[in-house]
Formats: sequence, structure tokens, C-alpha cells
Amino acid sequence: MSNKPEGDSVPGTTTTRRTPRGLETRARIVVSAARLFYVKGVNATTLDDVRLASSTSKSQLYDHFEDKLALIHAVIDVQSKFVLAREEQRLRGVKTLSGLRRWRDALVQANSLQDGSYGCALGAMSIELSDNDEQSRKALNASFDAWQRLIVETLARLRVLGVLTEEADPLRLGTGLLAALQGGYVLAQNAHNSDPMAVALDMALDHIESFARS
Amino acid sequence: MSNKPEGDSVPGTTTTRRTPRGLETRARIVVSAARLFYVKGVNATTLDDVRLASSTSKSQLYDHFEDKLALIHAVIDVQSKFVLAREEQRLRGVKTLSGLRRWRDALVQANSLQDGSYGCALGAMSIELSDNDEQSRKALNASFDAWQRLIVETLARLRVLGVLTEEADPLRLGTGLLAALQGGYVLAQNAHNSDPMAVALDMALDHIESFARS
Repeated sequence: MSNKPEGDSVPGTTTTRRTPRGLETRARIVVSAARLFYVKGVNATTLDDVRLASSTSKSQLYDHFEDKLALIHAVIDVQSKFVLAREEQRLRGVKTLSGLRRWRDALVQANSLQDGSYGCALGAMSIELSDNDEQSRKALNASFDAWQRLIVETLARLRVLGVLTEEADPLRLGTGLLAALQGGYVLAQNAHNSDPMAVALDMALDHIESFARS
Repeated sequence: MSNKPEGDSVPGTTTTRRTPRGLETRARIVVSAARLFYVKGVNATTLDDVRLASSTSKSQLYDHFEDKLALIHAVIDVQSKFVLAREEQRLRGVKTLSGLRRWRDALVQANSLQDGSYGCALGAMSIELSDNDEQSRKALNASFDAWQRLIVETLARLRVLGVLTEEADPLRLGTGLLAALQGGYVLAQNAHNSDPMAVALDMALDHIESFARS
């Protein structure tokens, strides 16, 4: 990776020296790249595609990102923050099983609005990058761990509140629920239809509900 | 796609005119490409990578495949047949819940032998291709449908045999089980560890087992 201070995307090193206009350009590049990676895929997107979509010159692009890998890492960072902020916001107030079903409804609805296409931003990048760039894999793994933790904490809260019995294992159930969501994304993207995601999440939630205190 | 007879990979058009040596070359190209697509990803693999791995010349490669997309379609065909033959062979004899657990064990063991890497050959290709090439999406969708049918038929058989009660819905449970497997592949690839796949499949199987005739 980069040793040049200008190419470094670590917060505090580059940004302190950037003008507001430079920061705006950088953000425009990252947002355009994130969109292209999501819709076309990481490896199918060229830096020329990103330049075109973000209306930036070659020198502007290389001023902010030494190479494609540096841009990929910046996109992973932005997408992770986006997904985790959304999930934190939706899950933190869940105190009932109906609340958990509403979390499921929001995910299925968003997926259905794009006919199941594109999958999960983090899951799709992970499949393309995990075996080829260890820095990407580790960053995405940290995001998946954080996502899983949000789900596990929600299930633990439901247990503390007496909604679920002591037999419910938040860690196992949370892992299974996140896997059901990710598998749902894969099948929905392939079918171009969100129905398999709905079925997958419902099955996981039915199982969690079997631990409901009656 | 190709209109040239030489570049057409539809069985019966090209193959009838090929020499045994030509067929061997074609098979070598497809197997090398399948391996590269699986390990590196479809879009990260260039035709030069394939030529190098299969020890073929540019003219040999283009003699068999008009372009990369034609090669991709041939790889989808080969990988689909491989996965479906394996699943058919493992699932057709399943007549008990222990038999279903052994199917799970074989999948987790294979995944664990490669430390969770690479994911599902069909799932990973689907994520890269489904939104960008409709022919690939349809072919992979047909394979996922056939795979799901094998699982659904197994669950239906367990219901007929009285292992599962009439309340068990083979279609819904089979969709959820395939999603758990696919989500397990995604999380295992990202963690470089097959544990999340084991947990995801166990949760789905526990749910199916809740329909066991006691």
C-alpha cells in the first residue's frame, strides 16, 4: 500500500492538509466508486469508470488514491459505516419479537424495491475480495463482526426482557440470523426477486420465536 | 453472443466437428477457467490468465470461445453439473434426520478443508454476474432451482416416510435451508473459517427437526 502521505486514506493524515474542495472531490470519487462497485461489482469496475461517474481527471483521482486498492479500502470503510449505522439505528430500539419482524420487513422491502438485485454491499464485496486482498477481508470481517454483535445484543436484550427464555443462545441465533439474511441476499439477487430472502429470514425468525416465553 | 459456428459452445454444433484433441483442449481451457474463476473471481481473471493456466495459445482459445462471456457460460455449465451431481448423489438416499445431518457434515468438512475460502462456486459467480449478464443469471438461476428442488424433494420424502409431520412445508424449509447454506458460505469466506457455516446450517436443521414426528 501507499507510503506517500498524499495517497494515504487514513483519517488525520490526508484530510488535515486537504482543502474543502479537495475533500469534496475525494467524497465524490468514493461515492461514485461505491455505487459502481455495488451495481457492477468491484473487479468489473475500472478506474476510468470511476473517473467518468465522478467527473474527475486522472490527476485528481491519483491525487486522492494511489491505486484501485486504496479506493477499494475507502469504499469498504464508507459502506461499512453506512450499513452499521443503519442497522444500529434499526436494532437498538427492538424490545419485542414484532420489533424484530419489523427489522426483517425493512430489509425485505429495500431488497424488493430493486427486484432483489445487487445483493448486500458488504457481502458482495467480501465474495470478490476476501481471498485476494487480506486488508479488505479483515476490514469486511470487522464490519460483519460488528453487524453480528448488533443482532446478538438485540437477542440478548430480548432474553433479559423475558421475551425469550434462558435457553435461547443469542450468539448462535444471531449468527444464524445474519447467515439467513446473507443467503437470502444471494438467492434474491440470482432470482431477481426478494421472495427467497423473505422466506429465509422468516424461517430464522420462526426458529428464534420457538424460544419465546409463552 | 456468437453467430460464428466455430465459436458456438452449444453442444452438437461445435463438438461434432472437433477432433478428440480439440475436445481435450476445450476441456482443459474450461477446467482451468473454472478453477481461476473460483479462486480469483470471474472478473479478476483475464483470458491471459486462462491461457497461461491451460497452456493454450491465443488462437486455440479463440478457436473454442469467441470471447470471455462464451467461456463464462461454459464454466457455469460445468460447475452447475458438478454441484448438482454431487448434491443429487448425497441427497437421494437421505431417509432420516441423521442422514440430513450427514449431508451438512460433508458440506462443512469440505469448506473447512479450505479454511472457509472461495465460497460456493455457483453463489460466488451469481453475485458477480447476475446483474450484468442476463444469460448467466438465467443459467445460474436454473441451477439454484434444481439444487433447491433436490433439497425440497428430500424434505418431502422425509414427510412421506413419517419422519416429519404434515405441518412441515418442504418448499419453505428447503428454501430456508439453501439460504442458510449460501449465507454460511458468505460468512465463512469472510472469516476464513467454516464455523459460521456450521452454525447457520445447524440452526436451519434444528428448525426442520422441530417438525419431527415425536
